[in-house]
Amino acid sequence: MADELERIEEIRRRLGATGSRDVVIGIGDDAAVLAASDAAQVLTVDVAVDGVHFRSDALDAPDIGYRAAVAALSDLAAMGATPRAMLSSLILPAALSDAFVYALVDGIGRAAREYAAAVVGGNLARGETLSLTTTAVGAAPERVLTRAGARAGDTVWVTGTLGACALAVLARERGARAPDAVDVRYRRPRACIEAGRALAAVATAAIDVSDGLLQDLGHICAASNVAANLQAEALPIDPAMRAFADELGQDARALALGGGEDYELLFTLPPAMQPPVAATRIGDLVAGRGIRLLDAAGVELPLPTMRGFRHFDDAAS
Amino acid sequence: MADELERIEEIRRRLGATGSRDVVIGIGDDAAVLAASDAAQVLTVDVAVDGVHFRSDALDAPDIGYRAAVAALSDLAAMGATPRAMLSSLILPAALSDAFVYALVDGIGRAAREYAAAVVGGNLARGETLSLTTTAVGAAPERVLTRAGARAGDTVWVTGTLGACALAVLARERGARAPDAVDVRYRRPRACIEAGRALAAVATAAIDVSDGLLQDLGHICAASNVAANLQAEALPIDPAMRAFADELGQDARALALGGGEDYELLFTLPPAMQPPVAATRIGDLVAGRGIRLLDAAGVELPLPTMRGFRHFDDAAS
Repeated sequence: MADELERIEEIRRRLGATGSRDVVIGIGDDAAVLAASDAAQVLTVDVAVDGVHFRSDALDAPDIGYRAAVAALSDLAAMGATPRAMLSSLILPAALSDAFVYALVDGIGRAAREYAAAVVGGNLARGETLSLTTTAVGAAPERVLTRAGARAGDTVWVTGTLGACALAVLARERGARAPDAVDVRYRRPRACIEAGRALAAVATAAIDVSDGLLQDLGHICAASNVAANLQAEALPIDPAMRAFADELGQDARALALGGGEDYELLFTLPPAMQPPVAATRIGDLVAGRGIRLLDAAGVELPLPTMRGFRHFDDAAS
Repeated sequence: MADELERIEEIRRRLGATGSRDVVIGIGDDAAVLAASDAAQVLTVDVAVDGVHFRSDALDAPDIGYRAAVAALSDLAAMGATPRAMLSSLILPAALSDAFVYALVDGIGRAAREYAAAVVGGNLARGETLSLTTTAVGAAPERVLTRAGARAGDTVWVTGTLGACALAVLARERGARAPDAVDVRYRRPRACIEAGRALAAVATAAIDVSDGLLQDLGHICAASNVAANLQAEALPIDPAMRAFADELGQDARALALGGGEDYELLFTLPPAMQPPVAATRIGDLVAGRGIRLLDAAGVELPLPTMRGFRHFDDAAS
């Protein structure tokens, strides 16, 4: 096994190539320096803990690193921000092999390159449990997207499709593997950066779907002091996901409502406005509190109790 | 015990008061937003892991939080930056009491107020081992301090006194308690923000003493491609620290050379320049590699092997 300084040097080497002209000082000094920017700066931090947010014995190291980075970048997307840089703080059990650690770092580096978010700094520490804490920094759009601007009468939309990540995890927990179109949503999630930028000018509120649609819509409703009516039939579900859910005897709709870590953007628009990005209209906001799920006839359906990915990390940022 | 959302709300309440006008959006949305700034932005992340960097059964919760924040802020000081904000990501074992968690957060909040570095975001997660990951963001000075600008002929200086933190830890490990003047250096370290700002215009290189003088001076030497001659008699040691070291049968000088987490600033100046801050001249830079320790007669002394706080976290930033 490489000694500590060798390992740090190797990590620097692997992540150094993620730099951009925006980076004045990258990895290797007491702190990193990003060039001055005319934009306000958007900051978020997210953590992935082995055994809580992922299982290191059931997910490849590059996927663990990639996912950790995307989870933080997705918070930038939800604000309409453009990624500038990341910092990556790793707690590594002593028993982890060099190969595992470098593969983990390569996964982070891949996300850094794909999203033009250079890894400019980080920290390594020993500890009993593997964890990855990612800070993401972005440039704010002229008008920042928040959870708080939605109004009764607004329409509710979501990008992409929902529930595939939760289904992929569920399959893995049973020792099965979802079809790749489903499993990839778990292994290689996407942060909706371009959609967020396009929505910044027009959406009244937005959030990324990290804790599950119901919970994240609940955040918008609470922050905006409105209620939501969701159309059950409108929920966007990928056909491959639905077919595999049927195969496993799972309720695809419940997964779409409660499953987390899809990293789609959930947003609201003023009445009659069409979104500037591909998205599905799934409901409307009304005065009041709470979320109601309605069938095509307008009859209220029970909300599924499954709240897939309810961790303790529905937190400050 | 408070449920998770209650706990998050309480933490928001306690940390919300650390805000400043620089904060456009603080705790509570997907990400935080800091106002646009003319300055380049300085970013660093630091982690404190229970059992590695501190022991939660031997240090009060407010001190654990305070120290974690100061460790990150000290990296800003080393660049000459002015703190703007922090993000705090906590991994909390399920068994931790509300009182402990809130006291930890109050310690972070105290540092945030003292250093005008509002906690604008964070993250809570469950995990087996308590850890605190702090991201600090600062405004860069016109000329950023780095480790890399020192030249042969420069003089070597350090603010304050060295070794007290290591001695305080050593005493605690033996079930004793250092006199308060020594112990406070462990419980409530100071980040040398003002000194860093003043030095930014003139110092050729700087670093904060987090890993111990020898190791941190080694970083400057490596980054600047120079060697150092240290004057053993010149090392600044607090008399109370020396007296207590004698009492414990410890070598105060070895602690000053190898003990970490003093968070003083170690810096280099061009020949004949006097520092703009209170500091002690402890040596000179010469061509070559490595560090030599010299007595008053210029005779080389053996370097102590004690490297007090050599963690794995002498890392990327």
